[in-house]
Amino acid sequence: MAALHHPDIDDIELVYVLAALGHPARLQIARALADGVERYCGEIMPDVPKSSMTHHWRALRESGVIRQRRAGRKLYLTLRRDELDALFPGLLDIVLTEPVGTR
Amino acid sequence: MAALHHPDIDDIELVYVLAALGHPARLQIARALADGVERYCGEIMPDVPKSSMTHHWRALRESGVIRQRRAGRKLYLTLRRDELDALFPGLLDIVLTEPVGTR
Repeated sequence: MAALHHPDIDDIELVYVLAALGHPARLQIARALADGVERYCGEIMPDVPKSSMTHHWRALRESGVIRQRRAGRKLYLTLRRDELDALFPGLLDIVLTEPVGTR
Repeated sequence: MAALHHPDIDDIELVYVLAALGHPARLQIARALADGVERYCGEIMPDVPKSSMTHHWRALRESGVIRQRRAGRKLYLTLRRDELDALFPGLLDIVLTEPVGTR
């Protein structure tokens, strides 16, 4: 199985973080991880077929928003909150507390 | 010529603002308008063919990030800064002061 690539903190760019968060499903995922607890994929979006989520996990991972870790057949996710807060202070506080679809 | 549609402030959604800003060209446009001064399209991205920018103007306008106004053959742009600051306090301060490509 291919290793999961995660950008180093120095390679995380604001514009791609915005792009990753600029989709309803991905913003929902980031909000579900906002408390810093690691969760597995099926916990976060249980009603969405796995195949349609693969693209979103990758967009979040490759932009530096989340970390993914394989354990057995499950993929576990965490938000890279400390790193993102260090890079873009205040951004996640604004973005993750704003309810989706009602501003 | 079709009227330019601009969403009302109550219809502006965070996720689509993030999506609009989550592209290098569009983030550059928003930053070029950050001072609140109205500019015409050709002033902001003079080296980019007009045809390739049309999509970006629309993405910024339809998400509520900018206003466009036709005057003769020119399209003038302003950032909807006051409205966005009221809806998402602090967001533009973070996003528009961060240099593109270097975090």
